[in-house]
Amino acid sequence: MISISIIGSGNVAQHLISALSKAENIELKQAFTRQKNTLTHLLDSDKIIDDYSELLPVDVIIIAVADNAISEVSRQILLKNQLIVHTSGSISIDDLQSHRKGVFYPLQTFSKSKAVDFKTIPICLEAQNQEDYKTIEAVAQSISDCIYKVDSQQRKALHVAAVFVSNFVNHLYLMGNEICNENQLPFDILKPLIQETAIKILTLSPQDAQTGPAQRGDTVTINTHLAFLTDTNQKEMYKLLTKSIIDHGKKL
Amino acid sequence: MISISIIGSGNVAQHLISALSKAENIELKQAFTRQKNTLTHLLDSDKIIDDYSELLPVDVIIIAVADNAISEVSRQILLKNQLIVHTSGSISIDDLQSHRKGVFYPLQTFSKSKAVDFKTIPICLEAQNQEDYKTIEAVAQSISDCIYKVDSQQRKALHVAAVFVSNFVNHLYLMGNEICNENQLPFDILKPLIQETAIKILTLSPQDAQTGPAQRGDTVTINTHLAFLTDTNQKEMYKLLTKSIIDHGKKL
Repeated sequence: MISISIIGSGNVAQHLISALSKAENIELKQAFTRQKNTLTHLLDSDKIIDDYSELLPVDVIIIAVADNAISEVSRQILLKNQLIVHTSGSISIDDLQSHRKGVFYPLQTFSKSKAVDFKTIPICLEAQNQEDYKTIEAVAQSISDCIYKVDSQQRKALHVAAVFVSNFVNHLYLMGNEICNENQLPFDILKPLIQETAIKILTLSPQDAQTGPAQRGDTVTINTHLAFLTDTNQKEMYKLLTKSIIDHGKKL
Repeated sequence: MISISIIGSGNVAQHLISALSKAENIELKQAFTRQKNTLTHLLDSDKIIDDYSELLPVDVIIIAVADNAISEVSRQILLKNQLIVHTSGSISIDDLQSHRKGVFYPLQTFSKSKAVDFKTIPICLEAQNQEDYKTIEAVAQSISDCIYKVDSQQRKALHVAAVFVSNFVNHLYLMGNEICNENQLPFDILKPLIQETAIKILTLSPQDAQTGPAQRGDTVTINTHLAFLTDTNQKEMYKLLTKSIIDHGKKL
């Protein structure tokens, strides 16, 4: 049995509390939040604390708060020799003000209103010694089947890559939605294409999956599209991405 | 029973032949290709022709060839009063050199090596009179559950939107793949995030689904990412997409 406490009440904290409280071999001892009512739907109220001095020693404390608060929160934990990990993709392990530290980064996009299946979420782990790594690895294995050992430099790369394939991709969905709205078309019409585009790269590399006018070098269609677009922002994006697809084709 | 012939042997033609030859109420009469062996795995060889003069009159001829060949191919069909449709997102209905014409545009990304379920593929239809529309609507209904009436101007918009949400999105997957390779990380680690990002917009609008540093206005992380990126192309794309997300946030 591994004992755990979680600090935070945001998306990541709530999804972790939900998954870990159901996990075998895990005792979820306490959750810290500044406003107790943010977690009462997930945990018995006697496990919810709002004062750092109430924190009990556990095998691992997981800090799941905003990036810019991680360092300060870790400073508030006065338990001696306590293993503390954070859940951030972009913060170094060294930002933790603790003797024993690590990283427990679930690589997924969390929304409060949408349940996730933790089993398929990659969890990226980092620790400073083998024993601590084994401990957080056991925690990760209790909720996920996809565990990766990732150092701080790799994790930074991964976070940038995640911005490209998730945040930026979602913004392109928004562009598609805008163009539909402007032309009295339902966004639903694009959804099967969006799903298939994502599913394709499970069996084909993105290089092999690429289709479309830029990939074909079809300048007639590209120019028709550019003439069609009146929004400066949409146009700039179209130009840059088209150029990049063409340049990548040349590299092959 | 509706009789159909198909002209072409590329991705769209092959997927249509495959779906229509299994459809009830459809008689797939002939398929035209310049090289008969490109279709022998899909059709009996007596149905495959390579000479336009062999084309028999049918209810609909579907031209599924490259955009720049559509007009010329339609000119080769000498059958009188023949209803002819093309399958292109970007070509006007008027490019067809025919008295009776229409458009039968399946909005999906087709790869030769990957089967698709036509039932969920939106088919966008256009015709010049009600009777011809009814005919191609019946053909579409025989293979798909998602039929949309879309005029030429809307179809052009839809094609541009499709480039954003499919071709450009796939290129962002490639950027993610590149960053992983450069940092000795398997691309597999990003795949659950890619799937979840696509699945999210089935229940949330792209506006509500947006997360990440740009959405949060987290300039510290944005600057860390820009400092991390050394490839000029990746950097330019990061800047433009980040700016667009921030600008869209301000509009709300």
